[in-house]
Amino acid sequence: MSVEAPYPISDNDVGRLLVSCPDGPGISAAVTGYLFGHGANITDFQQFTTDPVGGRFLLRVEFVVSDFERRRREIESGFSELAPRFRMTWRLTPAARRKRLAIMVSKADHALQELLWQQRSGDLRADIRMVISNHRDLEPVARVWGIPFHHIPVTPATKADAEARALDLMIGEVDTVVLARYMQIVSRRLLAAFPNQAINIHHSFLPAFVGADPYGKAAERGVKLIGATAHYVTEDLDAGPIIEQDVARVDHRQSVADLRRAGRFVERAVLARAVAWHVEDRVIVHENKTVVFN
Amino acid sequence: MSVEAPYPISDNDVGRLLVSCPDGPGISAAVTGYLFGHGANITDFQQFTTDPVGGRFLLRVEFVVSDFERRRREIESGFSELAPRFRMTWRLTPAARRKRLAIMVSKADHALQELLWQQRSGDLRADIRMVISNHRDLEPVARVWGIPFHHIPVTPATKADAEARALDLMIGEVDTVVLARYMQIVSRRLLAAFPNQAINIHHSFLPAFVGADPYGKAAERGVKLIGATAHYVTEDLDAGPIIEQDVARVDHRQSVADLRRAGRFVERAVLARAVAWHVEDRVIVHENKTVVFN
Amino acid sequence: MSVEAPYPISDNDVGRLLVSCPDGPGISAAVTGYLFGHGANITDFQQFTTDPVGGRFLLRVEFVVSDFERRRREIESGFSELAPRFRMTWRLTPAARRKRLAIMVSKADHALQELLWQQRSGDLRADIRMVISNHRDLEPVARVWGIPFHHIPVTPATKADAEARALDLMIGEVDTVVLARYMQIVSRRLLAAFPNQAINIHHSFLPAFVGADPYGKAAERGVKLIGATAHYVTEDLDAGPIIEQDVARVDHRQSVADLRRAGRFVERAVLARAVAWHVEDRVIVHENKTVVFN
Amino acid sequence: MSVEAPYPISDNDVGRLLVSCPDGPGISAAVTGYLFGHGANITDFQQFTTDPVGGRFLLRVEFVVSDFERRRREIESGFSELAPRFRMTWRLTPAARRKRLAIMVSKADHALQELLWQQRSGDLRADIRMVISNHRDLEPVARVWGIPFHHIPVTPATKADAEARALDLMIGEVDTVVLARYMQIVSRRLLAAFPNQAINIHHSFLPAFVGADPYGKAAERGVKLIGATAHYVTEDLDAGPIIEQDVARVDHRQSVADLRRAGRFVERAVLARAVAWHVEDRVIVHENKTVVFN
Repeated sequence: MSVEAPYPISDNDVGRLLVSCPDGPGISAAVTGYLFGHGANITDFQQFTTDPVGGRFLLRVEFVVSDFERRRREIESGFSELAPRFRMTWRLTPAARRKRLAIMVSKADHALQELLWQQRSGDLRADIRMVISNHRDLEPVARVWGIPFHHIPVTPATKADAEARALDLMIGEVDTVVLARYMQIVSRRLLAAFPNQAINIHHSFLPAFVGADPYGKAAERGVKLIGATAHYVTEDLDAGPIIEQDVARVDHRQSVADLRRAGRFVERAVLARAVAWHVEDRVIVHENKTVVFN
Repeated sequence: MSVEAPYPISDNDVGRLLVSCPDGPGISAAVTGYLFGHGANITDFQQFTTDPVGGRFLLRVEFVVSDFERRRREIESGFSELAPRFRMTWRLTPAARRKRLAIMVSKADHALQELLWQQRSGDLRADIRMVISNHRDLEPVARVWGIPFHHIPVTPATKADAEARALDLMIGEVDTVVLARYMQIVSRRLLAAFPNQAINIHHSFLPAFVGADPYGKAAERGVKLIGATAHYVTEDLDAGPIIEQDVARVDHRQSVADLRRAGRFVERAVLARAVAWHVEDRVIVHENKTVVFN
Repeated sequence: MSVEAPYPISDNDVGRLLVSCPDGPGISAAVTGYLFGHGANITDFQQFTTDPVGGRFLLRVEFVVSDFERRRREIESGFSELAPRFRMTWRLTPAARRKRLAIMVSKADHALQELLWQQRSGDLRADIRMVISNHRDLEPVARVWGIPFHHIPVTPATKADAEARALDLMIGEVDTVVLARYMQIVSRRLLAAFPNQAINIHHSFLPAFVGADPYGKAAERGVKLIGATAHYVTEDLDAGPIIEQDVARVDHRQSVADLRRAGRFVERAVLARAVAWHVEDRVIVHENKTVVFN
Repeated sequence: MSVEAPYPISDNDVGRLLVSCPDGPGISAAVTGYLFGHGANITDFQQFTTDPVGGRFLLRVEFVVSDFERRRREIESGFSELAPRFRMTWRLTPAARRKRLAIMVSKADHALQELLWQQRSGDLRADIRMVISNHRDLEPVARVWGIPFHHIPVTPATKADAEARALDLMIGEVDTVVLARYMQIVSRRLLAAFPNQAINIHHSFLPAFVGADPYGKAAERGVKLIGATAHYVTEDLDAGPIIEQDVARVDHRQSVADLRRAGRFVERAVLARAVAWHVEDRVIVHENKTVVFN
């Protein structure tokens, strides 16, 4: 253990570095050497190369350094000189700076409840700053937990205005938008303001059931699994990079209502995991997929 | 315990009755009363009504009766008088009469190996009578296990003839056809000869990836689950009643080859379970779904 | 569909009959015939015989009959004449009469929150009548949901008195006691008052880690799965009939705190399923095991 | 992509470096810098520190270098000068040098079959050099696959001799011993000859059932999950570092025979994954746990 290492370790001493660049020799050596030179002790180093030939080098480093908050600027400024040599996209985040979330919902409460609850229990290391909804149904839920609730109704006529209002509330105030069963298509402007920072959850089936009433169709086909997918939102609806998926087992005894119940349970579990990984900087998007260093 | 009950019980004393009819009062009473009147002791009774109002009544009964093979005709003939009263579709099968299977394959061996192996270990209670393939690759596999192997090449020009040859081999010789990664579309004639008796296995993803190279597309999207679906074959390709499904977990480290490997493992597990349930008369098809009494 | 059948069906028209008796011929026939004779339409019939020779016959029937609440006494009194013929233990419960629960907790809130939440969403079809705790920590949680909270401190000196107070609160007021991370051993008196009606949840590992700090030991051994078991409480601590079990996957990256987090998630899922099955009369205890007709 | 990188990449160009040492600053930098200096391109870098303060630094690096087989000695000799600086335990293995396995079995064939099969399909990247058994039952299985089979009967009187014979066969010929349902306790001599290189598989339950007939006891208690654990063998029976675990779902309908069937399936899946990770140098043992870089 280095003499410099702080003890006991608090979030104030922990930093995370995420790097994406074209693969090539010497990147790991340069990064780890740089951090070492600034007194950092690497405690978790996860790296992935998408292809040994001509692939992309992706890296997440967690490190401990005394008094990180004060030294951060110095580390960043040095690293910004190193980065162009490898054509790196990168970011350095202090563990102590928790991500700020806006949660957008409609009427279903299960995904919202799970996030509020996990945040309170400490399992979700983020600050939920606001709940925005096109309906009033979930206002009491937000109130109970002391989270500001904004009711922004959406009609075809007011959709553009409504979203502008939501954006005004969110920009500068939150880092990440979670669509926790928000039943409206979000605009390009929102996606542009939160690139790879907007997370959606939706049900998933094997096979897929296209069109209206997927649960009804799934019941008619007698599916044995009900799934959910959490993904980053992109312009191509429900086709963005997948962060997490899971399934629950069902059988012929389950009614359509039971399938929905199973779906709700797996949706909230999957969304909670995806958001937790996101806010701990464990997810890197590469092309249309995610690399999750969990 | 009834005085009549045989002891110890062997498969020769065990019968299975499957019933499907419009729901209504008195069906269970009539069936159980009838079996009771013929000295049968019911050891497993599983019933499901698709809808409490106007639904379909589906039933699987397993019963023990001394010397069932001899008494079977008498029980059947009596039951055929009872059945019309409730507009029943039904069948009575002796547990001792194992289903005879044809397995159709192309080049991939994993699904075939699993079935051969489970049959030998006693986990699959069926007789595998033949392996039919449009390629010669798996002939040694069948030979090792002592199963007749028929090579029936298929080309666009010979497809109709080839299938006619396969049908000639199978009709009267087998009860069930398992498409264990058989990469040809089977004809209506085969489906007509084996209605709800032909089982297929294919990979499944959440979401579905349509068109060629689904594993490649799944890798590009970064799916976290690889699935498989076993279903009865119907004219509408891959849309028949689902018997069983399962998934395996994958992540970004898995190459396309690794996804295929995971897919193979889950395919053979899912197919083996589906075939085992089928041959034990545990599957009833209702409309486009299955009721599995497992 | 019978002319008598009510439409639309409400919980007021639905009854459930549970039967346990020595196996023998004619039981199903007698039960279904009896219900048929009283105008009931059987919508779900699940039966299991523990052993084809000399086993126990276990049955759950769900049926629909017009105006069940009014007819119930008549059905019951007739059935009590039939039952001795087969030496039946049985009970008839109206679906409309929801089970009343007491939830006993200590400091951990996850299991309690899940039950309160599922109750409110309608997934748990029961009435939570009270929360009893030996600590005050979870009083605000109960208050938010409007459930009476009783603080009954327990010390070695007061343990007998404390439990007597809890029993006074519960007897006659609730049907079922859920130990949702209640960290006290309950007395024989409580078990006698709620035989097979007290449900406990605890963590489970493969292999088991005996003694103090099981999570610490599990982490030292590098377990890959964290499990939970819900069971009926019996005098033999943690050895009562298992209702439900499940596991969550972990790996070396998880700290002891992370294992506990995973454990909490699986505990609340497992307990919620077990309680839901119990309150829907889906669980029959036979010897030291459960038969779950789910 | 570096100019030096070979294309296309074959196993001959791939090396793996495993490192374990006390944590401290500069280790990653030193290792990656060293490999970079020798023209290696790092394609997978997985690192884990057991504790940020005073923990152990564990590392697996996969790298590509032209003509690795020729350069290996040079890389190794340089690294052996670097290693003492950090008090490293380390090993460098060429991907092209496949691990050689001995499989020890008794009468059950499922685990052996799965390994033979996965080896043949290419999913298990190892050479199975011999099967050793205290019974003759599985000789035909080994013969079919063309693997030498050695029958070494074990009786209380001959146990020491028998194991000496087995050791004679294995030492120098194989790197790893897989106990694939070998129902004899292996000696300290064998463990000393194959430290952290002998893998065992056994069933696991939640909770554990101690003593004889665990499946019978599990059935009596009505367990809902059947599990399996693969671990390195140590002197403390069945208490060595766990490599992999999994479970299968069962219910009251399963007989003891069915539980065993479920157990066999999960055992072969778990053992196959554990052996695959081991032979790809993905497992590092630290104290009594494993770190699996899969």
